[in-house]
Amino acid sequence: MQTDLSAALDIGGTKIAGALVDERGTLLVRTTRPTPADQDGAAVLRALAEVVTDLTARPEWAGVAAVGIGSAGPVDARRGTVSPVNIPGWRDFPVVAEVQALVGALPVVLVGDGVAMTAAEHWQGAARGYTNALCMVVSTGVGGGLVLDGQLHPGPTGNAGHIGHISVDLDGDPCPCGARGCVERIASGPNIARRALENGWRPGLGGDTSAAAVAAAARAGDPVARHSFERAAQALAAGIAATAALVEIEIAVIGGGVAGAGDTLFVPLRRALDDYATLSFVRGITVVPAQMGTDAGVVGAAAAAAQQSRLDAFVPTV
Amino acid sequence: MQTDLSAALDIGGTKIAGALVDERGTLLVRTTRPTPADQDGAAVLRALAEVVTDLTARPEWAGVAAVGIGSAGPVDARRGTVSPVNIPGWRDFPVVAEVQALVGALPVVLVGDGVAMTAAEHWQGAARGYTNALCMVVSTGVGGGLVLDGQLHPGPTGNAGHIGHISVDLDGDPCPCGARGCVERIASGPNIARRALENGWRPGLGGDTSAAAVAAAARAGDPVARHSFERAAQALAAGIAATAALVEIEIAVIGGGVAGAGDTLFVPLRRALDDYATLSFVRGITVVPAQMGTDAGVVGAAAAAAQQSRLDAFVPTV
Repeated sequence: MQTDLSAALDIGGTKIAGALVDERGTLLVRTTRPTPADQDGAAVLRALAEVVTDLTARPEWAGVAAVGIGSAGPVDARRGTVSPVNIPGWRDFPVVAEVQALVGALPVVLVGDGVAMTAAEHWQGAARGYTNALCMVVSTGVGGGLVLDGQLHPGPTGNAGHIGHISVDLDGDPCPCGARGCVERIASGPNIARRALENGWRPGLGGDTSAAAVAAAARAGDPVARHSFERAAQALAAGIAATAALVEIEIAVIGGGVAGAGDTLFVPLRRALDDYATLSFVRGITVVPAQMGTDAGVVGAAAAAAQQSRLDAFVPTV
Repeated sequence: MQTDLSAALDIGGTKIAGALVDERGTLLVRTTRPTPADQDGAAVLRALAEVVTDLTARPEWAGVAAVGIGSAGPVDARRGTVSPVNIPGWRDFPVVAEVQALVGALPVVLVGDGVAMTAAEHWQGAARGYTNALCMVVSTGVGGGLVLDGQLHPGPTGNAGHIGHISVDLDGDPCPCGARGCVERIASGPNIARRALENGWRPGLGGDTSAAAVAAAARAGDPVARHSFERAAQALAAGIAATAALVEIEIAVIGGGVAGAGDTLFVPLRRALDDYATLSFVRGITVVPAQMGTDAGVVGAAAAAAQQSRLDAFVPTV
C-alpha cells in the first residue's frame, strides 16, 4: 500500500477534475464532473462532493497523505475561500472547510490555478530543474505562478504570480479588473481576436473568430492577424521582463490555448523580450511552451499539497 | 568583547561609507571617503581600501562575524562583481575578492543598494514586522528590494526588487536602460523636473530646477508642477500594484529625495494605487515614507551580512 499519495482537485468554470497522484506525478485515478456554473453555489458544491466521493471510495484513498485544491481565482488561502470569476455562485466560498468535512483529518491545501499549473510545470514539465521560474497560462484569461529559490511561491493568499493583471500600459484600455492596460487586456485570446477584428481582419467561411483562427490567418501571412499576435507578444514580454526585474527568473513557461499558436506567438515574444529585458541580470531568459497540458491542474494541485505537507512536517522539527 | 558585529560597506557614486554595526543595528564606528568616480578603477579601490582599513584598525573589529557590501548596481552576487552605472571605472569589478583580501576569512556578502536599503527598513525602519514588503528609493534613479516570507529576497544576483526598470508604459519614452516607459523614466527626480519644465513650469529667481523645487512649486499650487508629481505617482502606483500582483506585498516603503516631497507625492500615489491595485489580494497596501535616512546603506549591508551568515550557519545542520 502506498502511503505517500496526494489527492488533487482542479476547480474551473467548465469542469471539476479530481485525481489520486503518486510521488512521481503519475495519475492513479481520475474523475471529473461538469461545473454547473450557471446554477447556485450548492449545485457546484454537489458536483465537487461527487468528485471527492469518487476518490475517497477508492482503495488507494488509504494511501493519501494530503489534499491539494487548485481553483480558478481569486482564492484566499489564508481563509480557505474562493471567489472564481467564472463561478458566480461561489463568492468567499469556504471550499477548504467543505472539502475538509469530506476527507477527515488530512491536511488540505488551497492555491490558485496559476500557482497549481506552475507547480506542475516545475515538478514534471518545462520548468523542471529551474530555481527561479515564471509559469503562465494565456487563454481566455492570463494567469501565472512563481518558483523562487527552488520552491513554489504561492504567496500568503495563494495568488502570487498573477501576471495577467499587472499594467504594462498605464494609460491603456480599461480592464474588467478596474485597472488599465493589464497584460490580460492585451494578450488574452479574446483580446487577440478583438484587436484583429477591430483592425479589419475577417474570419473565413466558417466564421471562426477565435484566437486560434487569428493564429491560422497569421501563419498564412495576414498582416493584421500577425500584428495582433505581435502586440500580445509585446505585452507578455513587458510583463515577463517586469517579473525578471522584480524576482530574477531564469525561465518563462507559457501554456494555455494562445501558446498553441506556436512560433506565431513565441518568435515575436522572444524578440520583444530583448527589447524590454535589457539589464544584465534580466537578459537571456529562456521562453518555452508548457509541457503538462490539461493534466497540469490536478498534477499541480498534488504537487502543492505534497510541498505543503513536507513543510508542515518540517516546521515542528526546527 | 562583542562577537556578533557586522562590518558594512556602502558603495555609491558620491561616497563610500563604512561602519561596524551591532546586533541591534547600532553604528559603533563609522567612516567615509569621497568616491573618486571620475578617476580610474584603481583609485576607487584605494578609497574603498582606506574605508576598510579604518574599520579593521579598530579594536571592535575582533568582534566582526561577517562583512556586508551594498553597492550601486547592477551587481552580480554570484560572481562577486559590480558594474555601478555611476562609477565608470568599475565594470565587472571583483569587489568581493578585493574586500576578502583585506578582511581574511570572514564571510563577505554582496547585495545591490536597493536590497540593502530594504534590509535596513525591514530590520529597523518602516517595514519592521511586515512579512512581505517592497522598499524603494526614488531619487536620481529608482531602485528597490523585496522582503518575502519574512526574509530579505536579494535574488540570485542580488538585484531583485529592481522596480525602477519595469515598464509600465510599453509604448512610452525610451529609457537609458534600452527599454521604454520604465518607472524610473517617469518617476525619478530628474524626470519629474524635466516633465515640469517641458510643460511650462519655470523655476524661481535662484534658477533651481531640481525635483525639490518642483515639489515646492506644487505645494504653492502650481498646476504644472503638481501634474508632474501626479504622473510620477501614477507610474509608481502601477509598479507597486504590479509587484503586489506578482508577489503579494502588504507594504510599500518609499525613501530617497523624491519621497521628501511628502504629501505632494504620497497623496496622489495612494489615490493612484486604488486605480491600479484592484484585485482582492492586492488591495489595501500600506504606503509610507522610509525611516532610515542616510544610514540605510550601511545598516542594510550589515543586516544582509547578518542574515546571510545566519543562513550559512543554518545550512549544514539541515
